[in-house]
Amino acid sequence: MTPRERTLFAGMDIGGTTTEVVLCAEDLTVLDRAGTATPAADGGQAMIGKALGALAPLLERTPGRLVGVGAGAAGVVDSAAGRILVASDSFTGWAGFAVADAVESALGVPAYLDNDVNAFLYGEVYGGAVRGETDILGITLGTGVGGALWTGGALFPGPHGAAGEIGHIPGFGDLPCTCGGRGHLETLASGRSLCARYAERTGRRLTAREIAEAAGHGDGDALAVYRAAAGGLARAIVMTAGLVDVTTVVVGGGVSGAWWLLEPLVREALAAEPPVSGHPVRLVRAALGADAIPVGAAARARRELTAGALV
Amino acid sequence: MTPRERTLFAGMDIGGTTTEVVLCAEDLTVLDRAGTATPAADGGQAMIGKALGALAPLLERTPGRLVGVGAGAAGVVDSAAGRILVASDSFTGWAGFAVADAVESALGVPAYLDNDVNAFLYGEVYGGAVRGETDILGITLGTGVGGALWTGGALFPGPHGAAGEIGHIPGFGDLPCTCGGRGHLETLASGRSLCARYAERTGRRLTAREIAEAAGHGDGDALAVYRAAAGGLARAIVMTAGLVDVTTVVVGGGVSGAWWLLEPLVREALAAEPPVSGHPVRLVRAALGADAIPVGAAARARRELTAGALV
Repeated sequence: MTPRERTLFAGMDIGGTTTEVVLCAEDLTVLDRAGTATPAADGGQAMIGKALGALAPLLERTPGRLVGVGAGAAGVVDSAAGRILVASDSFTGWAGFAVADAVESALGVPAYLDNDVNAFLYGEVYGGAVRGETDILGITLGTGVGGALWTGGALFPGPHGAAGEIGHIPGFGDLPCTCGGRGHLETLASGRSLCARYAERTGRRLTAREIAEAAGHGDGDALAVYRAAAGGLARAIVMTAGLVDVTTVVVGGGVSGAWWLLEPLVREALAAEPPVSGHPVRLVRAALGADAIPVGAAARARRELTAGALV
Repeated sequence: MTPRERTLFAGMDIGGTTTEVVLCAEDLTVLDRAGTATPAADGGQAMIGKALGALAPLLERTPGRLVGVGAGAAGVVDSAAGRILVASDSFTGWAGFAVADAVESALGVPAYLDNDVNAFLYGEVYGGAVRGETDILGITLGTGVGGALWTGGALFPGPHGAAGEIGHIPGFGDLPCTCGGRGHLETLASGRSLCARYAERTGRRLTAREIAEAAGHGDGDALAVYRAAAGGLARAIVMTAGLVDVTTVVVGGGVSGAWWLLEPLVREALAAEPPVSGHPVRLVRAALGADAIPVGAAARARRELTAGALV
């Protein structure tokens, strides 16, 4: 094999606002990346077309042979069939769209689709903060709270693909959640909820980042809403350790940018309410930032295509 | 193979008070059973000796060839090594005891050890109410609350053997638990807690069964404590569905004897707070009664010895 023929994997993160694409070497090192606005109102074909358009110049200027593509997308996906099942209202013509087929037709290589939170966890396991670990809960603290579960060395999707939904199970108080439930972690620890909880206390609307900065400057209300978020996270960790015996929890998403504030508060709450098993849980911040989803989607493609062996 | 040479599996349930042993055919039909008092204060060798003594007449009077033995025991066990790790205070010389080795030495066939709640779930999967299902939470409502998890068609013990502990995770209120934690399911739904909660309301100490009967006769306090237990069970079901995407929950243990009372209350609570995924969870009562643990222990032995093929 000459350097010209090196193996490449592409990854896509198709979000509601922006689409990020990466081109990775076989070891998942990011060789090149690009971003573009997602035409979420124009239908699945337009969205995939835009992502492929962003990928094309990367493929042109990078020597090597593309062998597989992975895509991560928000919503409920059928990861075996590579199809979107349920999409949020911000998308048009996306639910039901056969993402993997469309990418395969365009590029002539196998393509795969995952839920974006599952892709995030793939990325952190294969190239990020929890490399090589086997039993992990992944949590993304963004506008909402997402979760994904890795057990015994593999993503655990569950029989309906619904496993890992740590953001939307009860046991976290009694506040109403965007999903229609009550007392979910998302009511405490999402960016949207941090803003809402702070506004309830103060009448002021700040971003989650601004609230963290205010907490750092001694704002007691700001500290209180982050303390509640951290208490929720600690409880989520103890629940998951008890039910699934995870050894590690990796936290990503925009809200984890205030890790300097969150981490000590979560550790304080864990010390007050530790896992009953007595086995401590390793708590780490995600390492790949915005690359986690596209790199993780590429990692899924690599895993499928290598099945334990090198390509 | 003549009838004389038919394959037999033995199962033992070594509890704090009594030890039950069964002799099963290859399809796990119970051919014979016996019970004896557990000499819990006399050490592991005495306890296994008593169990083997109960099994001996069953082996004598049943034609066939014993090929494997399984044992279920309370506490924390190392199911790979067949050894007790942590036992309650009611046992002497039990923690650290190599159960599987002792049985193998005595009977000359392979022996296995499982936690009793895991054995219960083995029993219900291979011969009981959830036969052939793949993604299941098992709950035992006895003096305490036990849990076990079956995912993707196999028991999921977790990396520390600590998975499935639905009785001891937070999110179920704020009452203090026997384990030292707070707000665990066990504070609402165990036999001991039903009695305590009823006594707190009325000053009267009844058994869980008597409280169920009182509820059936219109005792509002009795109904209230069962309603709280059922609400906790429903929440446990929703949590586990959200985190692990189980399709089925099977409930056993003495308290499940009041299924006529519990089941409609759990269904009512589930209707008020359904799983967020939208996938309903099948709720069933355990079918094997006291046989579940010894039959399940025998099923574990069968599974280990056949590894997918018939013996």
